Amino acid sequence: MRMYDIIEKKKHGLELTRDEIFQMIREYTDGSIPDYQMSAFCMAVYFKGMSDREIFDLTEAMATSGDTVDLSVFGDKSVDKHSTGGVGDKTTLIVAPIVAACGGIVAKMSGRGLGHTGGTVDKLESFPGFHTSLSPEAFTAQVQKCNLAVIGQSGDLAPADKKLYALRDVTATVDTIPLIASSIMSKKLAAGTKSIVLDVKCGSGAFMKTPEQAKALAEMMVKIGRAHGRNTHAIISNMDIPLGHAIGNALEVTEAIEVLTGKGPDDLREVCLTLATLMVAASCHLSIEESKARTKEALDSGAAHAKFCQWIEAQGGDAAYARDPSLFGTVAHSLEIIAEADGYVLSCNAEEIGLAAMMLGAGRETAESVIDPRAGILLLKKPGDAVKAGDVIARLLTERADTLAGAADKVKAAIQLSDKAVETGKLIYEII
Amino acid sequence: MRMYDIIEKKKHGLELTRDEIFQMIREYTDGSIPDYQMSAFCMAVYFKGMSDREIFDLTEAMATSGDTVDLSVFGDKSVDKHSTGGVGDKTTLIVAPIVAACGGIVAKMSGRGLGHTGGTVDKLESFPGFHTSLSPEAFTAQVQKCNLAVIGQSGDLAPADKKLYALRDVTATVDTIPLIASSIMSKKLAAGTKSIVLDVKCGSGAFMKTPEQAKALAEMMVKIGRAHGRNTHAIISNMDIPLGHAIGNALEVTEAIEVLTGKGPDDLREVCLTLATLMVAASCHLSIEESKARTKEALDSGAAHAKFCQWIEAQGGDAAYARDPSLFGTVAHSLEIIAEADGYVLSCNAEEIGLAAMMLGAGRETAESVIDPRAGILLLKKPGDAVKAGDVIARLLTERADTLAGAADKVKAAIQLSDKAVETGKLIYEII
Repeated sequence: MRMYDIIEKKKHGLELTRDEIFQMIREYTDGSIPDYQMSAFCMAVYFKGMSDREIFDLTEAMATSGDTVDLSVFGDKSVDKHSTGGVGDKTTLIVAPIVAACGGIVAKMSGRGLGHTGGTVDKLESFPGFHTSLSPEAFTAQVQKCNLAVIGQSGDLAPADKKLYALRDVTATVDTIPLIASSIMSKKLAAGTKSIVLDVKCGSGAFMKTPEQAKALAEMMVKIGRAHGRNTHAIISNMDIPLGHAIGNALEVTEAIEVLTGKGPDDLREVCLTLATLMVAASCHLSIEESKARTKEALDSGAAHAKFCQWIEAQGGDAAYARDPSLFGTVAHSLEIIAEADGYVLSCNAEEIGLAAMMLGAGRETAESVIDPRAGILLLKKPGDAVKAGDVIARLLTERADTLAGAADKVKAAIQLSDKAVETGKLIYEII
Repeated sequence: MRMYDIIEKKKHGLELTRDEIFQMIREYTDGSIPDYQMSAFCMAVYFKGMSDREIFDLTEAMATSGDTVDLSVFGDKSVDKHSTGGVGDKTTLIVAPIVAACGGIVAKMSGRGLGHTGGTVDKLESFPGFHTSLSPEAFTAQVQKCNLAVIGQSGDLAPADKKLYALRDVTATVDTIPLIASSIMSKKLAAGTKSIVLDVKCGSGAFMKTPEQAKALAEMMVKIGRAHGRNTHAIISNMDIPLGHAIGNALEVTEAIEVLTGKGPDDLREVCLTLATLMVAASCHLSIEESKARTKEALDSGAAHAKFCQWIEAQGGDAAYARDPSLFGTVAHSLEIIAEADGYVLSCNAEEIGLAAMMLGAGRETAESVIDPRAGILLLKKPGDAVKAGDVIARLLTERADTLAGAADKVKAAIQLSDKAVETGKLIYEII
């Protein structure tokens, strides 16, 4: 069938066959279907949707469009975690060692950050010497040794998704559940773990603005995973409020170490324990109650922090920093945003805060930008918090003095204050 | 505004500003907006439509994207005619000389045919010596001398429409009234006549399948024309039944001459008189009744045929053929499709008949194909006609013997017979 007829079919809301979907993805990936046909198709999907069966097939076609990771040596113990969107999302740094300390197998690929979002790989590279380019053999050996390894996106994983996402990004066809869900899950299927735990963010700073939308996306991704034989679970968490206080690479690593050593912000700790509980239950075949007790024990006993140090060392990092994060040092320039009157924090725009952190040196404007690990923002007051005149709302940290004024304007504009007390939503809306 | 935001706006059904539409068309024409964004936009238009104001602006933006024809020397007398779709549509050959004989001014651009449709320019070039590449000065001089000239698409007329149509054609975004209406009317506006008469075809062989759809398209085009100061009218005519019997260039010219000399099929004569009446009324500022009487008189008196001969001669053609079409000669090979039993013609698929004629040499498969003026099909029985076993339903004519069998199969498959009497729709559904 010609791509023209596939577009026409979808335009009229008809269901594509498995063969049509696989042919379309194959020919789009090899360049024989041009972008201008694929973008028209994506817009038709925006309006007419796809059946569950079509979405399963689309995900599989993209997942198998390039290399796939073989984790069969770990049987059914391997588990992965994915979070949608994330300014200041440092959960992987905490969850992965907890799960590994509990006996779970975390063999994970992570990306670098671009624009307002940070990447786990960038955060880990705050440790001097840490590297994420392991050979497949070294990756497997490290997981066998310490239950845990995180490598950068390597090889040609789901190239169809990579090409399609880049096109959707410039044609206003990102925000449709069939294409979001198949995009995320194609990479997760290709990454090869037997279990998958998803953290679907919801709120003003996320793609999914309401708990209902986030639930629809989460349910679809869980369905896709299970249809392809993966033990898949999801939580829906609140993104109106950034997790923890730190935005910026070494700042987030420091905050993660605080949680791993029994300190750190409650909200970050709660989300991490919830995710870890689901992952350990899946990886170690435990009930949720058993898993919950074991993850809490791993955190409280210091076993998770010990696992973290072992992990950093295994991938070439200086574990002294993991024991004493003050070694990361401080930046040359800082600026504080001060409350001018008493009141309450009403909201903060996570995307704008992320962009301000990028300006300060914590993120990449282009793929070539160099990151300063110590730059970033400490968001000391968050939505729902009361503030008094003179309180520090946020602290901006950078080596580049010339960026401070612009970034400060962005942060001020991103944070809305109110003179009335503010109700904030739940931290975790639902577990699926 | 970035094209991304324009797509996003249309996707949500919002109205674009005049500036946004002009910017979009300008940047698409100069190549700074890529095809993959424009095709996503067109698909969003398919689903969300456009307001009348947006359609008027889009038409104007495309009409003024390149050269425009200046017919101001003819004041408000110039009139153009456009027909949507058309296998065997030879109305221009008849209508143009009738209007000119009545004192109307027909200064017209016509296209060549491609695929299953024929072009007026190809039909006229059946006359040895006839040429359609007149300079603007020669074009004006000829119209001043004999009220009538037809030239090929020249210059860079509505290049935005040309580029956009080519994209829509391969992205399944043709069939939406805002884009069809603005495409046709942008070329009519650029062609410069003060009045425009449209023949909107309706039926199985046309884009618009039902009279209601055709009416919606016709009304939109009339609105566009009037919004831009053009005196615009439309008829909605039945395309379930091809007009006349002839499909193929010299065959259609011969049938046109038959009508101009008082013979020829009634349906073709009626549609031509209706179109000519509207055109003469617009060009000569007459009431419909006055115009109707004058056009009939021009046809019956032989004045229209004399004008036809003058026109052919003025553009270099041999007018002897216009007086005696048997001079066109005959082809080497023919084949008749014979009725095997008594019955009635239920329907014929005009597109398939057009493709069969193309195979015989009457049309172009690619832009480089060479046309044989004498090749084609005579459709002797049409929907609604009774046939007896042994009657000739169609006669295929060609110089290429090897094409006969394939074309005959196509024609047979295109014509459906019935053993019950067949009701056919009206010839002209409505005049707007």
